[in-house]
Amino acid sequence: MTQRNALVVSAHSADFVWRAGGAIALYAERGWHIHVLCLSFGERGESAKLWKQPGMILGQVKAARRSEAEQAAEILGATISFMDCGDYPLRVSDERLLDITAQYRRLQPEFVLTHSFQDPYNFDHPLANRLAMEARVIAQAHGHLPGEQVLAAPPVYLFEPHQPEQCEWKPQLFLDISSVWDKKYRAFQTMQAQEHLWEYYTRTGLQRGAQAARNSGRKIKYAEAYQCVYPRVTDDFL
Amino acid sequence: MTQRNALVVSAHSADFVWRAGGAIALYAERGWHIHVLCLSFGERGESAKLWKQPGMILGQVKAARRSEAEQAAEILGATISFMDCGDYPLRVSDERLLDITAQYRRLQPEFVLTHSFQDPYNFDHPLANRLAMEARVIAQAHGHLPGEQVLAAPPVYLFEPHQPEQCEWKPQLFLDISSVWDKKYRAFQTMQAQEHLWEYYTRTGLQRGAQAARNSGRKIKYAEAYQCVYPRVTDDFL
Amino acid sequence: MTQRNALVVSAHSADFVWRAGGAIALYAERGWHIHVLCLSFGERGESAKLWKQPGMILGQVKAARRSEAEQAAEILGATISFMDCGDYPLRVSDERLLDITAQYRRLQPEFVLTHSFQDPYNFDHPLANRLAMEARVIAQAHGHLPGEQVLAAPPVYLFEPHQPEQCEWKPQLFLDISSVWDKKYRAFQTMQAQEHLWEYYTRTGLQRGAQAARNSGRKIKYAEAYQCVYPRVTDDFL
Amino acid sequence: MTQRNALVVSAHSADFVWRAGGAIALYAERGWHIHVLCLSFGERGESAKLWKQPGMILGQVKAARRSEAEQAAEILGATISFMDCGDYPLRVSDERLLDITAQYRRLQPEFVLTHSFQDPYNFDHPLANRLAMEARVIAQAHGHLPGEQVLAAPPVYLFEPHQPEQCEWKPQLFLDISSVWDKKYRAFQTMQAQEHLWEYYTRTGLQRGAQAARNSGRKIKYAEAYQCVYPRVTDDFL
Amino acid sequence: MTQRNALVVSAHSADFVWRAGGAIALYAERGWHIHVLCLSFGERGESAKLWKQPGMILGQVKAARRSEAEQAAEILGATISFMDCGDYPLRVSDERLLDITAQYRRLQPEFVLTHSFQDPYNFDHPLANRLAMEARVIAQAHGHLPGEQVLAAPPVYLFEPHQPEQCEWKPQLFLDISSVWDKKYRAFQTMQAQEHLWEYYTRTGLQRGAQAARNSGRKIKYAEAYQCVYPRVTDDFL
Amino acid sequence: MTQRNALVVSAHSADFVWRAGGAIALYAERGWHIHVLCLSFGERGESAKLWKQPGMILGQVKAARRSEAEQAAEILGATISFMDCGDYPLRVSDERLLDITAQYRRLQPEFVLTHSFQDPYNFDHPLANRLAMEARVIAQAHGHLPGEQVLAAPPVYLFEPHQPEQCEWKPQLFLDISSVWDKKYRAFQTMQAQEHLWEYYTRTGLQRGAQAARNSGRKIKYAEAYQCVYPRVTDDFL
Repeated sequence: MTQRNALVVSAHSADFVWRAGGAIALYAERGWHIHVLCLSFGERGESAKLWKQPGMILGQVKAARRSEAEQAAEILGATISFMDCGDYPLRVSDERLLDITAQYRRLQPEFVLTHSFQDPYNFDHPLANRLAMEARVIAQAHGHLPGEQVLAAPPVYLFEPHQPEQCEWKPQLFLDISSVWDKKYRAFQTMQAQEHLWEYYTRTGLQRGAQAARNSGRKIKYAEAYQCVYPRVTDDFL
Repeated sequence: MTQRNALVVSAHSADFVWRAGGAIALYAERGWHIHVLCLSFGERGESAKLWKQPGMILGQVKAARRSEAEQAAEILGATISFMDCGDYPLRVSDERLLDITAQYRRLQPEFVLTHSFQDPYNFDHPLANRLAMEARVIAQAHGHLPGEQVLAAPPVYLFEPHQPEQCEWKPQLFLDISSVWDKKYRAFQTMQAQEHLWEYYTRTGLQRGAQAARNSGRKIKYAEAYQCVYPRVTDDFL
Repeated sequence: MTQRNALVVSAHSADFVWRAGGAIALYAERGWHIHVLCLSFGERGESAKLWKQPGMILGQVKAARRSEAEQAAEILGATISFMDCGDYPLRVSDERLLDITAQYRRLQPEFVLTHSFQDPYNFDHPLANRLAMEARVIAQAHGHLPGEQVLAAPPVYLFEPHQPEQCEWKPQLFLDISSVWDKKYRAFQTMQAQEHLWEYYTRTGLQRGAQAARNSGRKIKYAEAYQCVYPRVTDDFL
Repeated sequence: MTQRNALVVSAHSADFVWRAGGAIALYAERGWHIHVLCLSFGERGESAKLWKQPGMILGQVKAARRSEAEQAAEILGATISFMDCGDYPLRVSDERLLDITAQYRRLQPEFVLTHSFQDPYNFDHPLANRLAMEARVIAQAHGHLPGEQVLAAPPVYLFEPHQPEQCEWKPQLFLDISSVWDKKYRAFQTMQAQEHLWEYYTRTGLQRGAQAARNSGRKIKYAEAYQCVYPRVTDDFL
Repeated sequence: MTQRNALVVSAHSADFVWRAGGAIALYAERGWHIHVLCLSFGERGESAKLWKQPGMILGQVKAARRSEAEQAAEILGATISFMDCGDYPLRVSDERLLDITAQYRRLQPEFVLTHSFQDPYNFDHPLANRLAMEARVIAQAHGHLPGEQVLAAPPVYLFEPHQPEQCEWKPQLFLDISSVWDKKYRAFQTMQAQEHLWEYYTRTGLQRGAQAARNSGRKIKYAEAYQCVYPRVTDDFL
Repeated sequence: MTQRNALVVSAHSADFVWRAGGAIALYAERGWHIHVLCLSFGERGESAKLWKQPGMILGQVKAARRSEAEQAAEILGATISFMDCGDYPLRVSDERLLDITAQYRRLQPEFVLTHSFQDPYNFDHPLANRLAMEARVIAQAHGHLPGEQVLAAPPVYLFEPHQPEQCEWKPQLFLDISSVWDKKYRAFQTMQAQEHLWEYYTRTGLQRGAQAARNSGRKIKYAEAYQCVYPRVTDDFL
């Protein structure tokens, strides 16, 4: 059986845990190879607790964030890599954009998870969305590095931002992650610098679970919510 | 094996053919029971050709429309019933609304197909949407005719209106109907009064097919497009 | 040469003056027959000044409003009729809806002016929009009173509400009314009960004029703004 | 000092507790008179647990719901009345609409709380919104029962629906309800028939509290979120 | 008589043919000078068939695309130039932006045709829109190269993207191109590398034609659809 | 008592006068320190009258615009600084973005005023919005220049663009500026090069004043309108 793959494009090194940890664990348990691509370590914008330690320097913050993210990825069953493009502001050159394109072609993901189109609280998130989207389209072009295997048309799902309504993000798919919740919560716990988010995202998981139950009539405790970028192509309504 | 059911709520007696004929045929071939509920015969607004015949009267127009719709339903493999609520304007009392609720409870459909939320060219269409939606919600209430089996939470899909962008309708699901296209086209041909639409909706099928192919990387010739009302609840992105 | 016609559907008896008086005067001067249909006299919601007079009764308010509106219509060069359906709330039965349909068929208007789709300050306005739109669609149906001449597809333009942004209304057409401004302002002056609006709508005319000038590079002093309901069909971009 | 008043228009007898209980308790503690108007008892759509009791009849369900709502209102410090218009579907005649108008005029509320504009899971909620909005506008009209004191222009806030993003509802105001949370939770506990919602709405309160903290830089534990219908008029940005 | 001009800004060298070929031919027949500005040759993203030829290199692809586009422009009656900015991704420096501004000033177009604001399938298209829009605004500024003749305020129309609803694009103007359809189809045939699009865009022309007929009551076989960026300034509703 | 501060980010040197002059004067009178940051002098796009003078050169235009803006700021009671980043097109490097961040940290503003998110007539305006928003978020990050005092969460208000509906801008807050109108109008008069705007923005002030009065039931003559970016956090509905 051939390996099946998926790609997660995360602006900062912890985003994938809060927002897509359940999806990653679920597919990893099914034998998929899930690769998480972190554009930055979130070393400036999401490491307040680390910076409060006396004598902290940038290299140390990055190393700590990398280590946490690697542990989280391992718990969830994913591989992870870091582009170290900086954050607040995240800036990605066209060369690095084409590196992301290269990752698409190597991995040939069957689906892609990334950030919302908008976020007035965090400009790195929509930029990650843009990069994930544009790199995907370039990877589909026969004339980009002709001879390489082009990318098919993997669906793109946008995971839940911190304040969904302010980001014009709307859930269109609830993924039942009840069976892997424990793994997701253990991955939370590697994020020592953001302890206040553990309970926030536990409650998010429970609320989305209750909504998933109501939308399906099924018993669901924890869910992750996603917005869909492209129409679903199917022969099945269910 | 238990019977599986679906419900199509159609404002006029021909709408289900142009807009959802492929879905009906596809599921009928899979052994589902698809019931089409026509709120009116479309006797005033969509029967221009019949009215041009000398001496035509309302009863005859209705009978002709009923007959065409019954033939189309038979070709597609569906059952059909008519509420004869009138059209241009369609008007449905609360008593008839509860009749639709009763149909939901009897049929226990696993999915529902109906019109778009808006249509500036046809006010009967959004009313049919409203009735299909409200009757569904009432059918879910334990306090409506307590003791009856309540409805679960079947997803609702909105089929394509005649001028999609003007109706603020957006395709979110492409259903591959290539395998049943011939059946759909044969159903078109029962609609003698609306011959100009045969080719219009054939082209629609081909355009949506081409788009479905592009969104999936798969070979698809004909598709129907649907907007989704509720979030999809799933354990699978694909 | 055959008479050319247009129809204005106004919720209250003064709306057509503030919002479409320029368009009416412009087309009247070109020899068109413009008919204004007032669904109510605005006797409750827009006659505060009249009600402050001691001993005022409903019949007197209606008569005063009718008289003002008739004078305004005469100044603008339009005919006018009143359906006296009440206001605050305006309520129109299906019988009266079909009366509007009948007016469409008799008049065969080449364009239609009416209120915006939404107005959180005034629920009679969107209802007038709805009635104007639905009656128009019924008038197009060959099966409604078969044998009568059906209506073609006249474009519908939505005139400017009092607080445009709150009504989700957006100007898509600026009509240069500079040449008939004096007439429009004289029609304002018949509205003795709403003197505070004379200057408000003069400023509106000047603001829209300045915007029209900026969007065209032409010299325009006064304009009226309209939202378009249907796509324009043309062989000319200009 | 004159009494200050506010009005809450609730479709079913429990809605005001989950969605606006904090606002009610907060203003009641400040000496305001808050009146809750329940259009129905929610006897059909939101009383599943009661209906599961053997031999239950409609009158008993209504009585139980009324009793719960009265207890909750008392805990929160509000008065309450019931219009008993039925639910699933809620239907309100123009006579009852004018009764709501009468309540506005008697109470002269300085602000109004009600449901969202849309809710694809519950058609009674947007109808309650519509009634609260239209009755308010009629109450402002000098020509409606002339001689009575007309209503000023109280702002209208829309409380949070069960699945906010699906209802096109967006939080624009976070109200800090930390100081009255205990009262709100005690009011929850009167709703014996909807125990599953106690924790759901506790989590909602915590999530909105965390968001309120993030949007203000202040320490806030529990918040309620509201959408604003009309622009705020102020001399102060803060 | 003075020459009248229009400008078409096309991201890739074939876009103008599928999307605006009819408008170009129509105005060319009327004696206008239509200039097509191609930002790239579409050499990477839209030349799959060419790249499948053995030994193909970039220069050859560009040359082939240029040749096809020149032939198409000739058939349609337009002049054409190429900026060779690359595609997938298209990137345009501020120097090249000002070159586009210079073209606006030289040509003094009376209308402008370009791509939609959004396109999740193709990031070069919205960038072309942005460049066409920003260059136009700079060309209007008296302080940009003072002394040159500034641009007036030509309307901008957005031609139809491949998957309109996904691009948040909405038709607001239907242009009847029946009289020049043969020319447009002949221009299609120069695009040897994209034969699959010939029939796709023929069907698009027929669907828009049918819609144009329905929106006007006129007989129209083929149409192109456009979204309008700015309000139309006019003294005529028709 | 500590100094309270606010920041105004203005694309061109006159924007703050037309759009936020009232807010500035109001808060200045209350003892606040309002700082206006002009990203450019508007030397190319908004100085047509200056460029019409014979022999005019760029340096002179900038000097004239600077002088006018300094006088206006003085009248309104604000301090002002200029980044001289150019206009038509405005371009701001990441270094200058971080300079704006530095201003946020130095000033610690309690609220921020800037341009709308979109403006199809002026691409410098949305860029100013973007810069003001992104710099604010970076200023909140503990890891940006660690050790400095980070910014809290000041609300951001978007002042009124020239053609509001075309900019997808919607008023959500009306600020009563009647008491400082004379000052605002005197500030207008320093803008010798844009005399045609004096009356335009006087009318805007009166229209927004009339709307503010209607939305509040209070007597208000002049108002400025603002859109709110973030939810308001409060313990008070009024």
